Amino acid sequence: MIRRQILTGGAALGATALSTTLASPAVAQTAPEIRWRMASSFPRSLDTIYGAGDHVAKRVAALTDNKFQIRAFPAGELVPGLQVADAVQNGTVDCAHTASYYFVGKDPTFAFDATVPFGLNTRQMNAWMQHGGGREVLKPFFDSYNIVSIPAGNTGAQMGGWFRKEIKTVADLNGMKMRIAGIAGNVMQKLGVVPQQIAGGDIYPALEKGTVDAAEWIGPYDDEKLGFNRVAPFYYFPGFWEGCLNLSVYINKAKYDELPQLYKDALESACRDATVDSMAKYDVQNPQALRRLIAAGTQLRAFPREVMAAAYKASFELYDELAEKNDHFKRVYDQWRAFRDAEYGWFRVAENSFDQFVYAMYAQEAQQRR
Amino acid sequence: MIRRQILTGGAALGATALSTTLASPAVAQTAPEIRWRMASSFPRSLDTIYGAGDHVAKRVAALTDNKFQIRAFPAGELVPGLQVADAVQNGTVDCAHTASYYFVGKDPTFAFDATVPFGLNTRQMNAWMQHGGGREVLKPFFDSYNIVSIPAGNTGAQMGGWFRKEIKTVADLNGMKMRIAGIAGNVMQKLGVVPQQIAGGDIYPALEKGTVDAAEWIGPYDDEKLGFNRVAPFYYFPGFWEGCLNLSVYINKAKYDELPQLYKDALESACRDATVDSMAKYDVQNPQALRRLIAAGTQLRAFPREVMAAAYKASFELYDELAEKNDHFKRVYDQWRAFRDAEYGWFRVAENSFDQFVYAMYAQEAQQRR
Repeated sequence: MIRRQILTGGAALGATALSTTLASPAVAQTAPEIRWRMASSFPRSLDTIYGAGDHVAKRVAALTDNKFQIRAFPAGELVPGLQVADAVQNGTVDCAHTASYYFVGKDPTFAFDATVPFGLNTRQMNAWMQHGGGREVLKPFFDSYNIVSIPAGNTGAQMGGWFRKEIKTVADLNGMKMRIAGIAGNVMQKLGVVPQQIAGGDIYPALEKGTVDAAEWIGPYDDEKLGFNRVAPFYYFPGFWEGCLNLSVYINKAKYDELPQLYKDALESACRDATVDSMAKYDVQNPQALRRLIAAGTQLRAFPREVMAAAYKASFELYDELAEKNDHFKRVYDQWRAFRDAEYGWFRVAENSFDQFVYAMYAQEAQQRR
Repeated sequence: MIRRQILTGGAALGATALSTTLASPAVAQTAPEIRWRMASSFPRSLDTIYGAGDHVAKRVAALTDNKFQIRAFPAGELVPGLQVADAVQNGTVDCAHTASYYFVGKDPTFAFDATVPFGLNTRQMNAWMQHGGGREVLKPFFDSYNIVSIPAGNTGAQMGGWFRKEIKTVADLNGMKMRIAGIAGNVMQKLGVVPQQIAGGDIYPALEKGTVDAAEWIGPYDDEKLGFNRVAPFYYFPGFWEGCLNLSVYINKAKYDELPQLYKDALESACRDATVDSMAKYDVQNPQALRRLIAAGTQLRAFPREVMAAAYKASFELYDELAEKNDHFKRVYDQWRAFRDAEYGWFRVAENSFDQFVYAMYAQEAQQRR
């Protein structure tokens, strides 16, 4: 705040002294022309998730009268989608749009910036990030990578994915090959699953040929595009490893520090704008896609409670193991866990009881219409 | 989009032709100095809900290098809180920050812009407004009041309020005087309640003296400030008449149309920013406030299902009655109802099953800790 006053103090004075038909030099000083490249981790075909990064770029331009222009590039055009953290860290690109859990191979602490199994839902994640200390507790970690990470987009709770056969007990998971990555893969491994890392575009043939028995991706709208319903009949819910997926704009720290405060503000509001925008898009598209999938024969299945409970236990055992070995992980986890518990204590009251009731009434009405 | 290109085309050309140390006249043309006054419907003491309007004002200034300044005034300083729609319509003030359901006395259609009983939750409301056709379907209605309404802030699902005695059946509501307004009041009236319209500051003495038997306000954080826990022991949930409360920035249409596109963009992103920001603030503050209230003796109670079901039936009967008499209401209701049903069909799958499971595990763990 103090910094902002120093930077713009001159501008305000200058603007007052001059008429509005002649711009003050101070405005030009605080509004230099800047061109950035943004490497997305996503393909352009995913208009929702790629679109969130692109939305940030477009809003920044709109908010700065095109003075600060960010151009988004799909995964692979500047750097491969899973290497954008390196590219931002090294300054090869100015910024990126990604899901932080892609980088848990470097350090599992990255996952908290995106999602962890049985973690926060979208509202709770936004709360943690914006006013719950999340960004602050993650800062020293991201500093060590020369990255400034700003929340920018969310998918909401994801689906559990596509299964070639039904899952009735934990034993059914034993030896099952499933496309699932990162910490979620580690959790599933504790339940007997053989996790597979497969890029989005390669999932369909793997599922078709039976190279994998199951695959998780995102939710109805994105999954439908990749056609998984044609090669696996059972669509499970919920994706208990992704109660939401927070997306992030990564910015090279030195580049970020060079920005005038005006552009930092534009970037911040553009990212929050993208968070509202992308969630709204998903929430409009997913219901329609789910209806189409079901009409085309997809069979919706809830994970058995036994499976969820076993995965829950495995998840928190894993977090304890990771916290013991990794100081960054422990520091973030401790703060996050206390926040999560406080959120759950409140959300299960007004929010969840409202949702539960109206969904039950909806189900009853839908039943009657049949 | 076309309009934007026409407006800023000159600016882009000018900026390219000149060096960045001298600002182009075109920038000044698209960035005139503008000062607006915003009349809030809320007192400054409600830092959450008043704060959302104030946040819009501050972000607009930050995004325009203080060229476009909006000054927020608490309810009563410019106009009384419940008269801000008139003030914006007449151009007495440039803009306002309010909850549209305050104006259902003029026309019940206003309610859709805020919330209606058994309506949308926060995510669903954002989806309806931003990509679900909500703003479009409301536009002809707001046009008739010379108002441009932009969503700006949300409270989340509210609590059902403070009751001096327990509610076990619908019969317990008979003759009960409750501070509850608007469409929610009409619904409760169908259940035997005698609804009372009382301003926020007057609720405490009314509840203390027994002039009313019950009063609803917002949620733990705001309710705690007004001290209702000291005069009523039972705190009911959920506020089924407010699955969320969307707040709105009202702008005089002529004033809005005069804004350069740059400022319209700033206003739009500032409002979305406020939506993320205010919801995050509530979601951080409410859990803490609820814990304090319970520690101080407040007894949490869920509304009996019988009461909820009776209110649900009464609500949709009321909507049908209103739709028969009011074309605006009917047009908005028909579109809204189809959207709501589609949302419920999807949200009860991944989103709700995730929430249900983790809250159940939380409750089990909390039980074990005791």
